Amino acid sequence: LRILVVNVNTTATMTEGIRQSAIAASGPDTEIVALTPAIGSPSVECNFESYLSAVAVMDAVVTYPEPFDAVIQAGFGEHGKEGLQELLSQPAVDIAEAAAQLAMSLGARYSVVTTLRRAVPMLEDRLRGAGLFERCVSVRAAGMNVLDLEEDPKAAIAAIVEEARRAVDEDGAEVIVLGCGGMAGLAEAIEDALKVPVVDPVAAGVVMAESLVRLGLRTSKVNSLATPPAKDLVGWPLRAPVRAPAV
Amino acid sequence: LRILVVNVNTTATMTEGIRQSAIAASGPDTEIVALTPAIGSPSVECNFESYLSAVAVMDAVVTYPEPFDAVIQAGFGEHGKEGLQELLSQPAVDIAEAAAQLAMSLGARYSVVTTLRRAVPMLEDRLRGAGLFERCVSVRAAGMNVLDLEEDPKAAIAAIVEEARRAVDEDGAEVIVLGCGGMAGLAEAIEDALKVPVVDPVAAGVVMAESLVRLGLRTSKVNSLATPPAKDLVGWPLRAPVRAPAV
Amino acid sequence: LRILVVNVNTTATMTEGIRQSAIAASGPDTEIVALTPAIGSPSVECNFESYLSAVAVMDAVVTYPEPFDAVIQAGFGEHGKEGLQELLSQPAVDIAEAAAQLAMSLGARYSVVTTLRRAVPMLEDRLRGAGLFERCVSVRAAGMNVLDLEEDPKAAIAAIVEEARRAVDEDGAEVIVLGCGGMAGLAEAIEDALKVPVVDPVAAGVVMAESLVRLGLRTSKVNSLATPPAKDLVGWPLRAPVRAPAV
Amino acid sequence: LRILVVNVNTTATMTEGIRQSAIAASGPDTEIVALTPAIGSPSVECNFESYLSAVAVMDAVVTYPEPFDAVIQAGFGEHGKEGLQELLSQPAVDIAEAAAQLAMSLGARYSVVTTLRRAVPMLEDRLRGAGLFERCVSVRAAGMNVLDLEEDPKAAIAAIVEEARRAVDEDGAEVIVLGCGGMAGLAEAIEDALKVPVVDPVAAGVVMAESLVRLGLRTSKVNSLATPPAKDLVGWPLRAPVRAPAV
Amino acid sequence: LRILVVNVNTTATMTEGIRQSAIAASGPDTEIVALTPAIGSPSVECNFESYLSAVAVMDAVVTYPEPFDAVIQAGFGEHGKEGLQELLSQPAVDIAEAAAQLAMSLGARYSVVTTLRRAVPMLEDRLRGAGLFERCVSVRAAGMNVLDLEEDPKAAIAAIVEEARRAVDEDGAEVIVLGCGGMAGLAEAIEDALKVPVVDPVAAGVVMAESLVRLGLRTSKVNSLATPPAKDLVGWPLRAPVRAPAV
Amino acid sequence: LRILVVNVNTTATMTEGIRQSAIAASGPDTEIVALTPAIGSPSVECNFESYLSAVAVMDAVVTYPEPFDAVIQAGFGEHGKEGLQELLSQPAVDIAEAAAQLAMSLGARYSVVTTLRRAVPMLEDRLRGAGLFERCVSVRAAGMNVLDLEEDPKAAIAAIVEEARRAVDEDGAEVIVLGCGGMAGLAEAIEDALKVPVVDPVAAGVVMAESLVRLGLRTSKVNSLATPPAKDLVGWPLRAPVRAPAV
Repeated sequence: LRILVVNVNTTATMTEGIRQSAIAASGPDTEIVALTPAIGSPSVECNFESYLSAVAVMDAVVTYPEPFDAVIQAGFGEHGKEGLQELLSQPAVDIAEAAAQLAMSLGARYSVVTTLRRAVPMLEDRLRGAGLFERCVSVRAAGMNVLDLEEDPKAAIAAIVEEARRAVDEDGAEVIVLGCGGMAGLAEAIEDALKVPVVDPVAAGVVMAESLVRLGLRTSKVNSLATPPAKDLVGWPLRAPVRAPAV
Repeated sequence: LRILVVNVNTTATMTEGIRQSAIAASGPDTEIVALTPAIGSPSVECNFESYLSAVAVMDAVVTYPEPFDAVIQAGFGEHGKEGLQELLSQPAVDIAEAAAQLAMSLGARYSVVTTLRRAVPMLEDRLRGAGLFERCVSVRAAGMNVLDLEEDPKAAIAAIVEEARRAVDEDGAEVIVLGCGGMAGLAEAIEDALKVPVVDPVAAGVVMAESLVRLGLRTSKVNSLATPPAKDLVGWPLRAPVRAPAV
Repeated sequence: LRILVVNVNTTATMTEGIRQSAIAASGPDTEIVALTPAIGSPSVECNFESYLSAVAVMDAVVTYPEPFDAVIQAGFGEHGKEGLQELLSQPAVDIAEAAAQLAMSLGARYSVVTTLRRAVPMLEDRLRGAGLFERCVSVRAAGMNVLDLEEDPKAAIAAIVEEARRAVDEDGAEVIVLGCGGMAGLAEAIEDALKVPVVDPVAAGVVMAESLVRLGLRTSKVNSLATPPAKDLVGWPLRAPVRAPAV
Repeated sequence: LRILVVNVNTTATMTEGIRQSAIAASGPDTEIVALTPAIGSPSVECNFESYLSAVAVMDAVVTYPEPFDAVIQAGFGEHGKEGLQELLSQPAVDIAEAAAQLAMSLGARYSVVTTLRRAVPMLEDRLRGAGLFERCVSVRAAGMNVLDLEEDPKAAIAAIVEEARRAVDEDGAEVIVLGCGGMAGLAEAIEDALKVPVVDPVAAGVVMAESLVRLGLRTSKVNSLATPPAKDLVGWPLRAPVRAPAV
Repeated sequence: LRILVVNVNTTATMTEGIRQSAIAASGPDTEIVALTPAIGSPSVECNFESYLSAVAVMDAVVTYPEPFDAVIQAGFGEHGKEGLQELLSQPAVDIAEAAAQLAMSLGARYSVVTTLRRAVPMLEDRLRGAGLFERCVSVRAAGMNVLDLEEDPKAAIAAIVEEARRAVDEDGAEVIVLGCGGMAGLAEAIEDALKVPVVDPVAAGVVMAESLVRLGLRTSKVNSLATPPAKDLVGWPLRAPVRAPAV
Repeated sequence: LRILVVNVNTTATMTEGIRQSAIAASGPDTEIVALTPAIGSPSVECNFESYLSAVAVMDAVVTYPEPFDAVIQAGFGEHGKEGLQELLSQPAVDIAEAAAQLAMSLGARYSVVTTLRRAVPMLEDRLRGAGLFERCVSVRAAGMNVLDLEEDPKAAIAAIVEEARRAVDEDGAEVIVLGCGGMAGLAEAIEDALKVPVVDPVAAGVVMAESLVRLGLRTSKVNSLATPPAKDLVGWPLRAPVRAPAV
């Protein structure tokens, strides 16, 4: 059972962190393959970067040469999942959705703690669009950017714990979802500090993908996620020089 | 890893069917223990029976003498999950919620096909209450009762397929959720007929419970699901003299 | 015209308080009969206790030997109303719903003030499930438990007034609903302090039940609330030997 | 206890029908006073007429010379209730809201059957605005206008029964609300034909108003429904010739 | 291209301010005609006044003797737009809706800053009723009344800026809508202070009306907004002495 | 005043049709510049193609060498608008949102008629995500693909009219929105056949963009749509050969 875990940014050390988290969460029969997209941004923190990553992740997956059983898009709340679902018949799992689903199984209300304030409306909209927002009482920002997480994990943990505590005390959260793929690996320390369940989204994505594979469930091809019809695309896949053959 | 799968009705053959489905869905390290409640109804098809089963399931679980890692309430859309969550720190999984979550991972819209028409508002309300109803385009009834499923599975499959096809053609469903614990084991035949992913709720409950256990996630005790304070309860647990004079 | 008012807990003094409130609210032709369930908890403050009370209230009602015209379930936001509705053709009124309906007739926004914080998500979910939550701007907790209400009504009033004032000033509430059956009788004092309409849920339940009876309206038996079909139930009704060891 | 029941149109025979229905629904101590507005339309079937009636009803009420305990606006889904609530401290009851509230107490889903198709969006919006639409599965039109109801009640009943039956069979309604003040008095015949509870909105308004009065509840004056500050209004009240002093 | 801009109150200086704002926003081919209603209140700050203004605005429009291409109802969140739409085939634009639509084009979340706190629920309900509330994160009141705006614009600007800043900092607003027709002309100063887009509702109404006229779009007459059928109305239009012919 | 109208697919004849429609809708001072993206699909009919087009449209806009005042993304319901908004300070208008806003100004309910059934959930989700879905009663598919529109406009009109008629008769639509940029130019013929207002989305986008420019309104830079911080992006903009410097 092989699962592709695709980082949404181009920072290889982040891909490695995600890979470690995914392996820690995976079952004994699962092989985790972590991919870094060939184009994009070193961190995805706005819609522009997220759309670029959407295409880059699809590109990374369709050009991956080996067979696989499921794909995990390891960016929290990024664009692109339905595109992946159309291109594949294997399950394609979004880590924000997986994490929200586990959180809803553990308490009556959950909050998301993410990095930057500017991402808050985007994450709210993504969860609402996925039909998983009703039990979310807040999306809060810890006030650091994605790459800060890597450089100073201790400060990151402290900032996340502080914001999560507010979510619990002021918003009524009973479960915390870490709202960034780059927070993979921090859940335990935060849970120790808070005494509240903390969901690592990469880990959530892994168990959800394994669950779907185990049950033989595949993406529905009956309507909106059917395989795109063959067309003369220009510049796809991205690997070859994009503009050469274009008019 | 031991998971309790608790039937919501008192029909032992149904418990056995659920057990078989749960085993088929479970991982190699999982031991499935199926319980039949000591009180209740031979099939749960209305709110009255569902409330009775809520208490009966809690009773069965709290009087189970061995350690376990998670509980699955194997009735689709029945009452009681939050009670179980309060009484336990292990994860307590509702099969309707688990099934809806998997369905939402596989297509843009899902439908539930259940047994009797009278259950439709109850199931709609339960899924809405769980915050998982937004992508549900219909709850349809195949027009048979729970025990019919056992007696004539072929007719049951035909009736479910017919209603599921309407869900796909008329309502825009891309995934079908089987809306009854007693439909465990029918998913494959229905999926073969429909060419649409079909989610077996008992199987969904098993993989969801295993997922939570694997990640070490437990029910939040921080607010609404905290352990009930000790009080002088009358008539709880139910086990002892309840069964003596019953018919 | 006889109305059963069923306490959800086993505390007889609480039943008496509820009875007094119900009598004060009832019309000249109404006979109030207050029942205490045979099993359950001395106070209902969590889902587990609430499910237990759901069954206990149904048991108390179906074993009541005299004819009656309506039933009031006198727990605020407890489980079980649809079960009662199925078992009876007389109206079965939930005091939380009745209170919310009166509150919505008196102002543009209302808030609920209940006892313990842990009940807040449960009450929100119950009102949302009843389709009566949209104009509710907050459910607030006064920070006392149910039995405190009885022991020190003055302190209870002060705490409720403080929280209700916040609801008015910060949340924009124009009407306050007392969110606990045990608060019956406190409305007047709180209204005096706040100068805002305060709805006593037991009183609301009584006038709502009388209204339905007066108009000859009965629970719909056309679909989801139809009388449960006869089945071989085990352990129902609960009355007989259950209470042997109880006081 | 005196209740004003204000017709929204200028047809005196309709006022008389409403008065009869209100009396039939009222308690022994209640005096029903039915008012016909001095301006407006012989039947209210669109927003323009409804806004005109809103002002006309307020005018009729503020110029009524005797004391009273509550007001019922006897148009189904018409504009103006919040205006009445501001002008009065006595309860002001909207018959659509009252009927929807009773309907929600009797079944899991309700439908409204009104007169003309053009009123459907208006009624949907009014119920949604009142926060009472979630359990409404359809608003259906019987295809007759308001005055047809008076002229040929038998045909009206047949048309309403037909549409109500569709609401039950196709939409899942368990309770029917008659969606027009002019349908007062038809409920019993329709209920006999359908075997489903049918709510007469004028009767619902009466019991709701009596309920509020009995409990001493009055319109909240704390924020949005506070008494309008005294200002130099032109043309109000409408009774005196409107334009004389105007420029 | 002639557009009627109808003030909702009877204060002529306010009409003049609205006219100036409308002219400033209008295109070179547009003639702005500003009307003051013949009846009503010098400022519209509650539902009663708003309903009165609804009728007064309709009266002013139907008695306007010249041809015109569109009408703008220049009160923020007032009642009556659907009535105007029924009476006319030309577009009738509500300034609150127009402003909300422009705001939603400029940022992910918007807030409204209005005059008095009592108007907040009314504005929330109007925007929700228009289907434009989902991206509104708050309606805030600057704590002044409508006529204060005219008397002391500097103080008004300061109070609005303060409240708007809270909307941005605490509620996450990215765009501010001025929630009162009388705030016309203040947008620029507020935008300079805040560095956030500020939408003037009168200006929004003008460009929206011009847009509809340019594209030849007219109010739909197919169902709910069809022209009211001819009936014997009493007291309409309001110009003639209302009560003369009445009984 | 120069407005960029960006086709989302690579078919130049379609760009030309969109340009003609945009010119027809634009004011005398507006210069319309129509762009075809350098990469992408000849028609955009699924999420994969839509994400690809999102990046292609951004690429086309950021590499456009001349100054401009607003951008219109001329694909109905495609991804990418928030990315454009971040990259620009000029207004960026989505034609689906603009069309829905105009439609909501003309009737109580609207429907969208698009090309293929598979697009329906995508369009529903996009409109819901934009907060403009509440008054949409249906998204219907005419059963043709995008390029069919160009090849056989008569057949296209007939199919759209048929589906639009159902929207009016069965769903209660009062206004029709053409749900595809490629339908530009068909509105008049469809409106003639239906006698219902029909909104051309490209035209709607033009008047909305002009409106924002006229009022000097620009995209909010205060939070989620702030300009992306400078980062070392790989493969952006797309014009240069993407993969050369990668690996």
